[in-house]
Parts: sequence; structure tokens; C-alpha cells
Amino acid sequence: MLLRNNIPLTYIFGKIKKELFFVIAYSLGIVVLYENFHVTRISIPLAVPALLGTVISLLLAFRSNQAYDRWWEARIIWGAIVNDSRTISRQILSFVENPYELEEVEKFKYRFIKRQIAWCNALSQSLRGFSAHKGLERYLDKNELVFIKNQRNVMVALLELHAMDLKKALNEGWINKYQQIEIDKTITALCNHMGGSERIKNTIFPVTYSKYINMSIHLFIVLLPFGLIEYFGYMEVPLVIALAAFFLLVEKMAVHLQDPFENKPTDTPTTTICRNIEKDLCQMLDDNKLFEDMPHVEKASIGSYYIL
Amino acid sequence: MLLRNNIPLTYIFGKIKKELFFVIAYSLGIVVLYENFHVTRISIPLAVPALLGTVISLLLAFRSNQAYDRWWEARIIWGAIVNDSRTISRQILSFVENPYELEEVEKFKYRFIKRQIAWCNALSQSLRGFSAHKGLERYLDKNELVFIKNQRNVMVALLELHAMDLKKALNEGWINKYQQIEIDKTITALCNHMGGSERIKNTIFPVTYSKYINMSIHLFIVLLPFGLIEYFGYMEVPLVIALAAFFLLVEKMAVHLQDPFENKPTDTPTTTICRNIEKDLCQMLDDNKLFEDMPHVEKASIGSYYIL
Amino acid sequence: MLLRNNIPLTYIFGKIKKELFFVIAYSLGIVVLYENFHVTRISIPLAVPALLGTVISLLLAFRSNQAYDRWWEARIIWGAIVNDSRTISRQILSFVENPYELEEVEKFKYRFIKRQIAWCNALSQSLRGFSAHKGLERYLDKNELVFIKNQRNVMVALLELHAMDLKKALNEGWINKYQQIEIDKTITALCNHMGGSERIKNTIFPVTYSKYINMSIHLFIVLLPFGLIEYFGYMEVPLVIALAAFFLLVEKMAVHLQDPFENKPTDTPTTTICRNIEKDLCQMLDDNKLFEDMPHVEKASIGSYYIL
Amino acid sequence: MLLRNNIPLTYIFGKIKKELFFVIAYSLGIVVLYENFHVTRISIPLAVPALLGTVISLLLAFRSNQAYDRWWEARIIWGAIVNDSRTISRQILSFVENPYELEEVEKFKYRFIKRQIAWCNALSQSLRGFSAHKGLERYLDKNELVFIKNQRNVMVALLELHAMDLKKALNEGWINKYQQIEIDKTITALCNHMGGSERIKNTIFPVTYSKYINMSIHLFIVLLPFGLIEYFGYMEVPLVIALAAFFLLVEKMAVHLQDPFENKPTDTPTTTICRNIEKDLCQMLDDNKLFEDMPHVEKASIGSYYIL
Amino acid sequence: MLLRNNIPLTYIFGKIKKELFFVIAYSLGIVVLYENFHVTRISIPLAVPALLGTVISLLLAFRSNQAYDRWWEARIIWGAIVNDSRTISRQILSFVENPYELEEVEKFKYRFIKRQIAWCNALSQSLRGFSAHKGLERYLDKNELVFIKNQRNVMVALLELHAMDLKKALNEGWINKYQQIEIDKTITALCNHMGGSERIKNTIFPVTYSKYINMSIHLFIVLLPFGLIEYFGYMEVPLVIALAAFFLLVEKMAVHLQDPFENKPTDTPTTTICRNIEKDLCQMLDDNKLFEDMPHVEKASIGSYYIL
Repeated sequence: MLLRNNIPLTYIFGKIKKELFFVIAYSLGIVVLYENFHVTRISIPLAVPALLGTVISLLLAFRSNQAYDRWWEARIIWGAIVNDSRTISRQILSFVENPYELEEVEKFKYRFIKRQIAWCNALSQSLRGFSAHKGLERYLDKNELVFIKNQRNVMVALLELHAMDLKKALNEGWINKYQQIEIDKTITALCNHMGGSERIKNTIFPVTYSKYINMSIHLFIVLLPFGLIEYFGYMEVPLVIALAAFFLLVEKMAVHLQDPFENKPTDTPTTTICRNIEKDLCQMLDDNKLFEDMPHVEKASIGSYYIL
Repeated sequence: MLLRNNIPLTYIFGKIKKELFFVIAYSLGIVVLYENFHVTRISIPLAVPALLGTVISLLLAFRSNQAYDRWWEARIIWGAIVNDSRTISRQILSFVENPYELEEVEKFKYRFIKRQIAWCNALSQSLRGFSAHKGLERYLDKNELVFIKNQRNVMVALLELHAMDLKKALNEGWINKYQQIEIDKTITALCNHMGGSERIKNTIFPVTYSKYINMSIHLFIVLLPFGLIEYFGYMEVPLVIALAAFFLLVEKMAVHLQDPFENKPTDTPTTTICRNIEKDLCQMLDDNKLFEDMPHVEKASIGSYYIL
Repeated sequence: MLLRNNIPLTYIFGKIKKELFFVIAYSLGIVVLYENFHVTRISIPLAVPALLGTVISLLLAFRSNQAYDRWWEARIIWGAIVNDSRTISRQILSFVENPYELEEVEKFKYRFIKRQIAWCNALSQSLRGFSAHKGLERYLDKNELVFIKNQRNVMVALLELHAMDLKKALNEGWINKYQQIEIDKTITALCNHMGGSERIKNTIFPVTYSKYINMSIHLFIVLLPFGLIEYFGYMEVPLVIALAAFFLLVEKMAVHLQDPFENKPTDTPTTTICRNIEKDLCQMLDDNKLFEDMPHVEKASIGSYYIL
Repeated sequence: MLLRNNIPLTYIFGKIKKELFFVIAYSLGIVVLYENFHVTRISIPLAVPALLGTVISLLLAFRSNQAYDRWWEARIIWGAIVNDSRTISRQILSFVENPYELEEVEKFKYRFIKRQIAWCNALSQSLRGFSAHKGLERYLDKNELVFIKNQRNVMVALLELHAMDLKKALNEGWINKYQQIEIDKTITALCNHMGGSERIKNTIFPVTYSKYINMSIHLFIVLLPFGLIEYFGYMEVPLVIALAAFFLLVEKMAVHLQDPFENKPTDTPTTTICRNIEKDLCQMLDDNKLFEDMPHVEKASIGSYYIL
Repeated sequence: MLLRNNIPLTYIFGKIKKELFFVIAYSLGIVVLYENFHVTRISIPLAVPALLGTVISLLLAFRSNQAYDRWWEARIIWGAIVNDSRTISRQILSFVENPYELEEVEKFKYRFIKRQIAWCNALSQSLRGFSAHKGLERYLDKNELVFIKNQRNVMVALLELHAMDLKKALNEGWINKYQQIEIDKTITALCNHMGGSERIKNTIFPVTYSKYINMSIHLFIVLLPFGLIEYFGYMEVPLVIALAAFFLLVEKMAVHLQDPFENKPTDTPTTTICRNIEKDLCQMLDDNKLFEDMPHVEKASIGSYYIL
């Protein structure tokens, strides 16, 4: 998640350093050729790069749109994970009957909600390419840790534990039949969000598309100096740089937005979201100790102008 | 919420005062250079800013689109809050059984619906960056106020109280099992709307995007006078101002629309919506006194041509 | 609802009469200046209005899109009102048990479905700014009329009556618990459609946006004659008129579409839709008399080429 | 439904025959005037029609978009009708209890599923403007035919019969209370699809919009030859024809797509879809005879390159 | 599914080999005519192809959008198949009661989940135009294979078996009434996904649209060399090739994306998705043997840079 202020220009242009270097060298070369060696026949009408520029920006708008939609969908999915984590906790706390205040039942509630926090963290780490098991010992008890140990898909295993716990609760009479179905629906929703995140993570944007647009931007940059040289002389260089940087940055931005789970500043901030889920669920459990214990991981983030 | 009429031009241009001042000085400077000091070599073909203008307006259209979508989604979410507040009140009033007309049950209904109004107000204030606790003593009784006092997330706590009250009603036999599930579904919907509002509030629009577009608009304005000077002479100044103002305003508008909970005139009018919810819920409760008592807060709004 | 054929040109251009008059005078004035008084220095390159025209049409396309979406969403909501009116009637008729063919039960069904027709009509009239009470005595019985008399929000009150009737039916054993929940869900859907219509009705399109676009179209029209005068001479006048009319009409169209409940020809035809709902519900009730009695209100519509 | 291959050019251009004829005559006339009678002053700069062309294509893209969305929504609705027809049959077959293998129950299932096929066919015919009653005697028994005979809205009546049959099944103990609700939900879904189809059928695209775009395309064609004549001479004629045909065809296409139930080649293929529904439902009923008996109506379709 | 890296240029340009060959020959011919035979009158202003290029790229952006939407919808549907396969397995495992640990019940669960894997594979193969029966003997037992043998629609038959098994489970008391309804809802969701895939597979993109765009691209390429020849001479050839390739590739891409079940590299990777479903479901069943036995079919894929 990019923070609102203080994005240094060096950060922005750092992303296209290599390309910019080439652009500067190239446009300088041409202007030197034109002005000092009087190779003036290379000037072409501006309409040619202009046509190309219009066409490219149309397709760039299309591409930005799709990339933004993927990014926003990822954010919506993680927003829904927040909602359904709150919902499942509320349901566990308000549905479960415990007239004799048995400790077993209280432990059941506590275990269930902790497991939900574990599930969010496991999903977040797995999407970012880390081990889904890491750090779960904070939230899970021994039996649960043994159960998920050798499972390929930890998130699926945790949802299965949710469902098995519900079955037990039904058999013990802690919840009724309708409540089981209702909580199961929330689990199904969580399962859908997990699948949605994986879909965005695993489906790459049609790669040939990106290639075509990338190639045409380069063609555009190659033609641009010839179109401007006649009118601008040496002033052509900064202008070419500005225009090239603009197109390259917009393209780069789309490339970043379209994959929102890659440890980049434009990512969906799943770590922060998990932390917020933990905060709310701990409030519901009245267990602030658990939450406040945790070191503030996100403080140790990559740069000072974004957190994930 | 902007009202339909009487938006003074000063309000519109007030937003880009600083920029306009710079534009006027800059374009005047150039025309004076050109006409009085005969620095005529600075004229450039109009096609250069025209290309830039076309490209920018494509990306501006994309950006306006995304900003509008955020704004409209925020409005849809608050429309859904209206709907579900009415629904939950209707369900409480028509589901709860009270054959012996016990006062306790009537109080339960009254307390529940008042708490729903409190939840809407707490969410509205929290989204605008104010304390969620402010003014809730109008709607909540003492016990409820104690319960939420030390909670970090007041809205989550209020929904928990909703759910706990339902559990009590089920145990007392005031509602049946299916009705509990059904009202719980409405609470889940409210929980989702809360999450949706927070998502829009907390997710900033990809900040580098905004930067690129902003930078290119400035580049466009810098180039524009050179393209117009040859044909327009002194008339270039008002034309540059008009075009610059247009681009700057459209961009500014997008910036405002994309964050609809920031105490700005284009905001989602959550205060007004809360007031309308209160009006409808009080009608259902047959308690007009409560509603009419309230001072018309929105009359004390910032300007005369918008209310929030 | 605009009908398919016979839209006279006078109707179309009637909407922009005033503007067109100004455009004609203005463009004539300029051509007379240019041709008769030889003020030829006022000609400007066509590229200037062309740039403006391209930029405006991009933003106009964006605006048309949003306006169309509002209009189409309004239509979808009213389509859903048709669907859910049919559904609630089907549910009332097929869920309610009446083994002894009690007249009381038959009356209950009849009253319920009539009240649904009343609700549609009240919503339609309220959206168009008329009194929601008007004409409801055709559909409601005395008690119901008394109940809604002093209610601020008639539609909410009618849905409350629906819900209260369901409660009674459950207590009498005419429907079972699951059926109550199921019909209540349909009432919730109706409540959402009502809220959706109100949202579109009450949320104005960001007003500064409209202003900017409107102002730029005027700027474009002001510049256009200067760009065309050199090549067209007197022929410039009809051309300016045609182009100005095109932009003004497209903008006017967007303005009309974006508010689909304002008694304009492009409105959602809520009156006709209410009439169709009545037709279908009366068929289900086997009570054609009721339906055929009603005078064909829409025949007395404003013009001959559209009905609302 | 257009088939993939062999669309003869004559078919494509047949749609704009009249317009093309006019365009040819008009552009020929102008070139003859220019080349033979040396009326050369009529040449205008290409930028004028170019500006108009850009503006029109922006609005044409907007319009194509909306038209395509209507067409695709219609297709989605009919896809959902397929899904829900399969679902309702599966539910009838797997929910209904028949431990003593009573013939009455088997007949009930058979009648229900046949009636579902009837409903699809009635809707398909009604949308295309034919009588909804035609051909239903293949699927309905005598009593059902009598019931629907005098009903204005056959589809609503058939869904009512569905619901009444469910009520009977519940009373006889063939299904339980939850199953009644569940099948009723599927009926509600069918009711929504019916309403959705009717909405698309009955809501015309804002007619003034179409007019404006149509008029501007004609203005564009009128101006085009003057812009091209200078550079192309007699070659102007084929070029004008190609450009005019392109714009006219794209517009015509949008006109066709936006009304997908009008017996045109681009229609939603409701007849074919009904036939597929029948195939699947007969497979479920194990009654292939019924299905195979039917003459292959769609073979007798209008042309050889599309079926509806 | 295209993999991220190493797409050789030969692959990209291989798709438009034929067209490129023609373009090279054509543009070479013209430059030879112009330069060597001094047929210089054929040069035309660049504005003509530029106008055409702008118009085409607008419609190409529209078309890319629709094609991408179909492709992405197909991917969403298959993502939902993953989710609902996990959900139905979780429901079977956690809903079914087996207090006496009867082998029959365990077999029932195993059979059900295996059948779900079979359904996914049958759908995947059927969408790609292969026999839906192939390879199902790995997942189904003898009785099931006999049942589906002569069914036209295997997927519908498998869902019917699911539903029949549920009925049996209800009668045996392994699940309760609410659980039957809940699992039936998941079956309905699977039925909808199947219908959605078939809709995308069977509905061709409006074919006349594609034709018009294709024809205009060719017209654009035919005009392009005449517009460039004057300024570029022999350099016109690579430029024409680059621009032609760009338009042809973007169009080709849209053609490929719009049909995502045709055994092409841009397809929805249904085989891989089925394999993942099998992996997760086998984990749930604790039956890794089944999964690991299977030969890695996708290794034998068509090329080295994509898998389906």
C-alpha cells in the first residue's frame, strides 16, 4: 500500500532507470547528428508518431483499466475477508449456547476464532509466495498444528477444521441445525475469497498483449525524436524524455497493478489487513493481550513510503 | 452532497486558484517575450501539445471513470445501509412475538432499533475521521454505553450487541430459530457495508498514477503557449487559461470524487442519510418525539451550497 | 419511455432552441465581419477547436456512459419490482393453506396482493414528486388507509403492513415458519428496490463535472467559427450549427438520462410498469374486473410520441 | 445466431443497400463536378471530416458497448434459463419421495418437467412476438391447457401451476417443507429471468441518441468527398464508399445487437436453446421418445448461414 | 495458459505469417514504383490513414475489451468450480454423520468426492471438444459408468447422481433435511458454472462486427504506404510492417481471447485447474495415492511455453 505523501521522484523514475538512460542517449545522438553533422533529411512529419501515440494511448487506457480492475478486485476480496472474519466470529460468539458456562465450550469459541486469524495469515503469506505454515503456532494449538503439518494446502485444511468443529458443536448441542448451516455458509464465503485471490495470483494477464503494447511504445519512442527534431533542436531531448517517461511509467504502473500479490508497493496490503482482522477479533474475544503482544511487523517494512 | 443550483464560479475556480495564478503569469510572460521582444523562434507546431492533450484526456477519462466508480460505490453502500436498517427494524417489529404484551419485550424492540440508528451514526462519524462515540448517548442506554466505552471498534461492538440481544430473544422464546438466522443475515449485510465503506476510505487510489497524470498536465500547460502564440498573440492568454483550467478542474474533480468520505462537498452525504434512517425508523417505532427533538445539525454546514 | 417512431425534428431541436438561436446569430455575425468587412485576421488554425473537440468528446463519452448506466439501473430496478411483485403474489397464493376454504383467508390473500399493487403505485408517484397517497383508495381497505394516513413514508408503512399480515398468518397457522421467512425475503427485496430508486432519484450527478463539460462545449462553439471561416465562408454557418447542435444534443441527452424519474420523455416508464404489474396480479387473483375498471391513465399523456 | 463461416458479402452489404446506392451517386456526382466542370473551390481541408469522424467513432464505441451489453445480457439470461431448468428438474427428481412407487407421483414428476419445457417455449415465442400458446399442446395435459387458455400472460400462469403443484406435493407428503421453499426459489429465479427478457425486449435504446449519431454519420458522409477530392480525384469514390460503409455497418450492427429478440440473425437463439433444454430434460426423464419425435424446426430456418 | 517468460518472437509473428508476407510484398512494390519508376502522384496525405487508424483503434479497444471480458469470465467460472468443488467436499465430509463408523458411509463419502473430480474432468474435456467419457473410469465405479454410458450429457447425469446420492443419505439418516438443501445449493452452483462455460463456448462473438473491423484494418494497411511514401522512401517498408503487425496482432489477440475453450495457448487452463481440484480433494480424502498415481498429463503439452 502506497502511503499518500512523500513519494520521492527518485522512486518513481527508479523504476524506469534503464529505459530512461537509453532514451537520453538515443535522443541526444540524433540531435547531435542533426545539428552538428547536418543530417537533416532524417526529419519526419510529426503526424507519424502522433498517430502511433494516439493508438497506443487507447490500448494503454484499455490495459490500465484491466490492470486496475484486477487490483481493485483483489482489494474487494480482502475487504470481504475482513467482513466474513468478523461475521464468523460474531456468529460463533452469539450462536453457541453455554448455559452451564462449561470451560470446554469457552475454549471451543476461543480456538475457533484464533483459527480464523490463523487462516487469514496463512492465506496472506501463501499469496506472497512464503510458507503458509510460518507463524501459525501463535494462533493454533498443538493438535491443530499436527493436523496441518503435512497438508499441501494449509488453508483448505484449516477450513476443514472449522467445519469439523462445527459438526462436533452440533453433536454436543452447543449450536442448532440451522446455525450449523449458517456458519457453514460463512465458511463457504471464505473458501470463495481464497479461490478468488488464487485466481488473480495465478492467472497472468494475456502475455502477448503486454508484449505488443510494450513493442509499440518502443517503436513510438524510436520515431519520436525524428518528428520533433525539426522544430525543437536541442530542446527535443527533454521533450522526448518527458513523453517517453510518461508512456513507460503508465505501462509500468499497469504491469504492477495487474499482479497485486507480488511484494510490491502497489500490492494489496494483506499484512496490514490481517493485523486489523486480529485487532477486531481480539476485541470480540476480549483478549487484548494476544493482540498487543505481537511485534509490529509492518514497521520493519521495505521502504519508508509504503507498507504492505 | 452538492446541491443542484447556485454554485458560484468563485467556488469552482477557488479550488485551482494557485495553479491559475501561475498559468496567467506564465502565459503572459511568454506573449510579452514574443510580441514585445520578438523572441519568435519559440513558437512550436500545435501538433505537439495536441498529441499530449489527446493522450492526457484518454487517461483522464480512465481516471474519471475509476474515481466516479468509487464515489458511486460509496453511495450504493450507504443506500444499502438505508435498506438494511429499514429491513432489520421491520424484522424486529414483525418477527418478535409478544402475546402477553410484556413491557420487557417492547423495551427490547425499542432498544434494538435505537441501537441501529446509533450504529449508522457511529459509522458515519468514524468514516469522516471523528470519534465514533460522539452523540451516541442519545440512542443507547447506560449498559450499552458502558459496554462500548473501551472498545477500539465501536461499530463491531454494536453489531455484537445486536447479535447478543438476538440470542437472548431466542432463549426467551420471543423469536424462533429461523427468525434468528434471518435477522443475523441482515446483521451480516450491515457488517459487509461497514467493511465496504472502510475499504473505500482506506484504499488510496494508486498514487503514482495520479502523479504521472498530474505531471503530464503540467507539461501540457508548459508547452501550450508556445503552440498557440503564433496564431493568437495576446489572445493566447485567455485561451491557455481556459484550457488549463479545464484540465486542472477535471483532474481536481477526479481527486475529490475518489475519496468520498473526506468532509468535502462531493462526499457521500452520510449525515443526511443517517438523519433519513432515523426518520424512517422512528416512524416505524411510532416515536416521532425522538426524531423531532434533534437539532438540525446539517443546517450548520460549511457553506450555503452543499450539505454533507 | 420514448416510442420507436415519429419523433419530429421540432421536438429534438426544441430542447436546444435558445442555444441554437445564439449559435446562428453568433456564427452569422462572424462570417459577415470576415467577408463583408474583411476582418480576416480572426481566422485561426482548425487544430485548436479540433483539439478541444476531441477532448470534449472523450469526456462526453464518459459522461454519456455514466448517465446511461443510471438510466439503465433505474430500469433494472423497476424490472425487479415487476419480478418480485409477481413472486410475492405467487408465494401468497401457493403458500397459504386454506383447507376449510374460510372466507377470512381468501380475503387475506386478496388484501395482500392488492396492497402490493398499492405499494408499486405509491412508489411510482412518490418518485415523480407527487403525493404517494393519491389513488391508493382503489387498492387499500379502510383500516389500511387509516394506518398510512399520517405516515411520512407511505411505502415503508405498506411494507410494514405486509410484514404484520405475515405475522398474523403465521400465528393463525395459514403459513409455516419457513414460508414466513421466505416471503419476508421477498419483502426485503422490494425494500431494496425502493431504496435503489430513491438513491438514483436523490443523488445528483457531480454537479461541477457537468459545469466543466458545459463550459468547454461553449468554449468550443465560440472558437469553431474562427477555425472554419477561412475555408467555408458563408457555408461556415450551417456547419457550425450542425456541430454545435450535435454536441449540445448529446450533452442534453446525458443530462436527461441521468435523472430517470423527472417526468421527462426519457424517464423510466413507472406508470406503464405499474399498470402491467396490476394486469398480472389481477390475472393471478382471477379478478379482471378490478383491472379493467381503471381508466387508461397513460392515454392522457403529455405528448403523442411518448408515455411514461 | 450467426454461424461462424460463410457469411457472403452480399448479405453484409445487403443491409445498407439503399444507403450505399446514395453514397455512390453522391460521391460520383461530386468528382464529376470537380474534375470535369472544374468546380475546384469546393475542396475543404480534410481536418473537418476528420474531426467529425473522431467524435462520431467515440460515440459509436460508446453505443456499440451498450448494444453489446444488452445482447450479452440477453444471452446470459437465457443461459440462466438453461441452468435453472436443469436445476428444477434435478430437484423434482431427487427431492420427491415415492417409497411405494405410486404411479400418481411418477406422473406428477413427469408433468412438472414437461411443463418446464412448455414454459421455456412459451417465453421464447412470446419474446419473438408470436402467440405464447402455439405448440404447447405437445407438453401440457388437458387440464393445464384449459387453465392457461384465457390467461393474458401464459408464462406467469405456468409458474403459478408449478407453485400449485408444489403445494399439493407438500400436502401429500411427497416433499418436505424445506424442499418446497427450495424449489420455490428456483421458480423465483425463472420468474426473474422472464422479467429480465421482457425488460430488454420492451425498453428501447434512448431513441434521440440513435438519431443524433445517425444524423452525424450522414453529415460526415456528406462532408467526406469534399475533403478527399483534392488528393484522390476519381479514386475518391471507392474510398468514400469504404469509409461510409464502415460507419454505416458499425451503426447498423449496434442497432441490431441492441434488440436481441426481433427475429434477426444476431438474435439470442432462443429456439435452439429451448431445444437443448428439451434434450437435457428428456434425458433426465429417460424419455428420449418425446424429444426425438419433434421435427427439427430449426432446419427450416430463414437462411443457410444462421439459425435462431 | 501462457507462461510468463520466453515467448519467442517467432511464436508471436507465426500467427500472422501469411498476412505479413503479403504486407511486405505490397509495401515493397509501392516503394519500388515510387522511387524507381517515379510514379509519385500516388502519394496521399497521411491524414487519411491517420483518420482510419484512430477510428479502427477505438473499435479495436472496444473489441479487446469484450474479448478480454469473455476470457476473464471463463476464468472466473473455473475459479468458482474450484471453490465449489472444495465446498461440496467439505460439506460431505463435515455434514455426514457416521457414529458407528459404518464402512458403507465412508464409501459413500469417497464415491461422492471422486465423482466431483470426475465431473470437473468431464466438463473440461467436453468444453475442449473431446469426449466427456474419456478417463472417467479412474474416478467412477462400475454402476456409475453404466449409468452415464448412454447419456448424451454426461455432466448433467453426474449431477443427477450427486442429487440421488443425497436423497439416499437423507433417507438413511446420514444427513439431515437442512444439510440436503445446503448441499443441493452447491450442486445448483456447479450446474450454473457448467451452463456459464457452455454459454461462452457456444455463443460466437457477433461475426459481422469482426468482419467489419477486419476489413477496415486491411483497408488501413492498403492506404498506409501511400501516406508514408513521400517522407520515408524505402524506410516506409519496415514502418508499414510494424504498424500492420501491431494492428493485426491486437486483432488476432482479441480473436483468441474471445473463445477461451479452443485448445489455444490463451485458453482457460482447465486441465491444470482440474488437476489442482484433484490435489485438494484428495488431500481432504487423505488419499494421496490416488492423486500421485496420475501421470502428469500436462507435461506432454503442445509447446514448451504454455500449458492448458
